[in-house]
Amino acid sequence: MKTACVILIGNDILSGRTQDTNLTYLGQGLNEVGVRLISARVIPDVTEVIADTVNECRATHDYLFTTGGIGPTHDDITADAIAKAFGVELVRDPGAVAALRTHYTSDDDLNEQRLKMCDIPQGAELIHNPISKAPGFCIENVYVLAGVPVIMQAMFDGLKDNLVGGEPMLSRSIACYIGESLLAARLGEIQAAHSSVEIGSYPFIRDGKLGASLVMRSTDAATNDAAADAIREMILSLGAEPIEE
Amino acid sequence: MKTACVILIGNDILSGRTQDTNLTYLGQGLNEVGVRLISARVIPDVTEVIADTVNECRATHDYLFTTGGIGPTHDDITADAIAKAFGVELVRDPGAVAALRTHYTSDDDLNEQRLKMCDIPQGAELIHNPISKAPGFCIENVYVLAGVPVIMQAMFDGLKDNLVGGEPMLSRSIACYIGESLLAARLGEIQAAHSSVEIGSYPFIRDGKLGASLVMRSTDAATNDAAADAIREMILSLGAEPIEE
Repeated sequence: MKTACVILIGNDILSGRTQDTNLTYLGQGLNEVGVRLISARVIPDVTEVIADTVNECRATHDYLFTTGGIGPTHDDITADAIAKAFGVELVRDPGAVAALRTHYTSDDDLNEQRLKMCDIPQGAELIHNPISKAPGFCIENVYVLAGVPVIMQAMFDGLKDNLVGGEPMLSRSIACYIGESLLAARLGEIQAAHSSVEIGSYPFIRDGKLGASLVMRSTDAATNDAAADAIREMILSLGAEPIEE
Repeated sequence: MKTACVILIGNDILSGRTQDTNLTYLGQGLNEVGVRLISARVIPDVTEVIADTVNECRATHDYLFTTGGIGPTHDDITADAIAKAFGVELVRDPGAVAALRTHYTSDDDLNEQRLKMCDIPQGAELIHNPISKAPGFCIENVYVLAGVPVIMQAMFDGLKDNLVGGEPMLSRSIACYIGESLLAARLGEIQAAHSSVEIGSYPFIRDGKLGASLVMRSTDAATNDAAADAIREMILSLGAEPIEE
């Protein structure tokens, strides 16, 4: 199993100003290539915190992704923090400057602030940004992505097929309008009988009615299907309709 | 300054199945009572990971909040993990049973799975759940809340005025349709001249137009206002309109 960690960098996420959506996107996308997102952090725009957290998390996961803090303003300190984490210098990357030149043709447009986005840690490789050209970068197993979702997504989509994963995690979900308490005992038995499937129960309230989504996850479709059969049978025997999700 | 950490517990968040919104709600609510959310974790439903992460984070923050994993099903292991973290037993709380009895009047309804939600770590105090009655709990500086947003919010709203905070963080935000690169230099100067305000720049694309929200945060309204005046002036001098947010 290949594992990943995501670090969301940004005071705005912690203050509640910005609702993050990058974690969900990365969790789904990593699943598709057989990499399992097993932990995430949200940290503030503080150089030492970023550097320390990156060093801790890159040592304990196969892949580490960061989002946020690679723009041109004073609060964009991720590249600097990553350089410190690796003990290397920031260097202006000619490839990054060339990429920005395709976007900003005059020297006036390609000002010092924009050029700051071409400074990456020594030894890092660029991650292509098809939207606004200012690149992300990868150094060892650390992938440094933008925070703006549309840019982050484009960067990740461009690199994800190069990640070396294991078998993709397959999931199935069956919902029903039965409260969790009424299916908990039988569901526990089903989990025990299908121990190679991870079965999750997620309660919801829809149109004022209480229900639960029962999610099966494993790397084997037949294994998931067998658990799904048992869950469908349980729902029917409790007098409700199984709803495939 | 009083600090807080949030731990979001749930495989479903890491797999990308569930888009979390609890972090944003807690970040905003904690701000209102002068507690600063300075870090967050997202971790899977694994007892040892929950216990270790809780012990690490409760030691390094004034307050720790967890969300998720306190329902009746086999994958709801948060109470057990917190008991392990504190080295205490789980005990069936008479107050929690009484609360559930107001909701479920017959013994058939108050089945063993529902009663499982009344098992809390020895020494913990209940957190009231006005929605579905099954309580959260608080032990020392750790507040254990539900994962379902409407229940989590009700639990937090009921307890937040009892938190001892410092001065609330005040924020102002001014947006403009200017790309960050064109205001980065002047904005850096404004940040340097107003060092007691934390100024963040958050780029956006709205209706296909590039812009940025400039957010000022400090505990003093006049300090924020002074920075806001400088930012408004900068935007006007660059030929755009300041938009109060």
